[in-house]
Amino acid sequence: MANAINSFQIVDPSPIPLYVQVKDLLRARIFDGSYAPHAQLPPESGLGAIFGVSRITVRQALSDLQREGVIFKIPGKGTFVAKKKAAQQLTHLEGFAEAMTREGYQIYNRVVGHHAIPATAEVAQQLGVEAGTSVAEIRRVRHLNGEPVSLEITYLPEQLGQRLRNEDLTNRDIFLIFENDFGIALGHADLQIGAVTADRTLADALQVSEGSALLRIERLTYTAEGKPLDFEYLYFRSETFQYHLRIARRPAPVGSE
Amino acid sequence: MANAINSFQIVDPSPIPLYVQVKDLLRARIFDGSYAPHAQLPPESGLGAIFGVSRITVRQALSDLQREGVIFKIPGKGTFVAKKKAAQQLTHLEGFAEAMTREGYQIYNRVVGHHAIPATAEVAQQLGVEAGTSVAEIRRVRHLNGEPVSLEITYLPEQLGQRLRNEDLTNRDIFLIFENDFGIALGHADLQIGAVTADRTLADALQVSEGSALLRIERLTYTAEGKPLDFEYLYFRSETFQYHLRIARRPAPVGSE
Repeated sequence: MANAINSFQIVDPSPIPLYVQVKDLLRARIFDGSYAPHAQLPPESGLGAIFGVSRITVRQALSDLQREGVIFKIPGKGTFVAKKKAAQQLTHLEGFAEAMTREGYQIYNRVVGHHAIPATAEVAQQLGVEAGTSVAEIRRVRHLNGEPVSLEITYLPEQLGQRLRNEDLTNRDIFLIFENDFGIALGHADLQIGAVTADRTLADALQVSEGSALLRIERLTYTAEGKPLDFEYLYFRSETFQYHLRIARRPAPVGSE
Repeated sequence: MANAINSFQIVDPSPIPLYVQVKDLLRARIFDGSYAPHAQLPPESGLGAIFGVSRITVRQALSDLQREGVIFKIPGKGTFVAKKKAAQQLTHLEGFAEAMTREGYQIYNRVVGHHAIPATAEVAQQLGVEAGTSVAEIRRVRHLNGEPVSLEITYLPEQLGQRLRNEDLTNRDIFLIFENDFGIALGHADLQIGAVTADRTLADALQVSEGSALLRIERLTYTAEGKPLDFEYLYFRSETFQYHLRIARRPAPVGSE
């Protein structure tokens, strides 16, 4: 089989199903750069002709590759190669720029909104204030190497929001501004991790198609004293970003943190 | 404002935008059970008439509630109330049944596939075997209180897959069978956390619409000796399930685990 993969030949009959061979060859061509990130793949019929297999076989291979996140489909447009995903470790609480700059990425944030608004019931509950209390809402589209990767909607006590107006939100994490400029020590954060399809607003902000799958995080960050400080909705483009996490079978001993 | 919310009245003029009031009222009605989980909401025009606001205002409120995960839309069918999401803590490595049974849920697994297959390049790399090596593939649809919540595709050394044929995979976690029956101690797992839209296969398995957003996890579990043991693709229905994680700002001291 190693030979078959190296020479891009489909072998039939073979103990390996045809669609698995097609999948492995396509993946190899993507990883070796023959199909570059964001390149459009030939249509199913074209791939069938290239590999000498049926369109059904091609479809099965593409379906698997899509599930693996190697390719993605844009309805009505075609099938495209996904980029190698950027990833942030979830081991401890870090700002996005803090984490990704260390990985060698260039980060900047486009601030698309910074207002005082009356807290919705949800935001009020998270921040521990009365519904309708004026809070700051900051909307940022975070860019990784020049491309939008996440929309972050941050809710803070209004006074902190006002102070942040004088800070460089384009280049700096709010977490680091809190700690280094405002002298607010952060403690921990609670995350809810899910997925959502992009509606028009999210699609426009992240430059993806409506209906694309996004990783969705709700994050409530507490001060070192345990007071809720900062509630956020984070929406990540799932074809360019994922979270990494290493977890142990046995919990760390009590008192280890 | 508390009065307005309690009596389900929209106040105009008010410092709180109309769509936010509609959103908070709808959320309150959902949380108090007036609109039950999976109930269909009236169409936008109907909601506009109920609340005495324009259809645009209703649409803005629904769009926000959808982003929050309180409701979900099925194209061509309408808008529905999401159920309160089940959640699994990601603090340490646990099987799904192990974690969710403790939360009071009833779990069972429908085993929809259990075969020996040649390892794809991806699976082979993860398990540390040659591509094409025969490995066991087990596909399970996990059910929470009788409803499908995740599709889990598990790859294992073939011999372990054979031994698992004699075990009760309908009711038991593979992790617990490894530890309690096979005497294999688990060490840690590496997770990649992302999102994907459901293709036809995933949609059928999980009884969701094609194009629904799914939480997608790749999980590679290692033995206590640090050998890769079990590689999985996990697909969760995002409108019924999410992961919870608490992370500290400061990493735990070295040597604490």
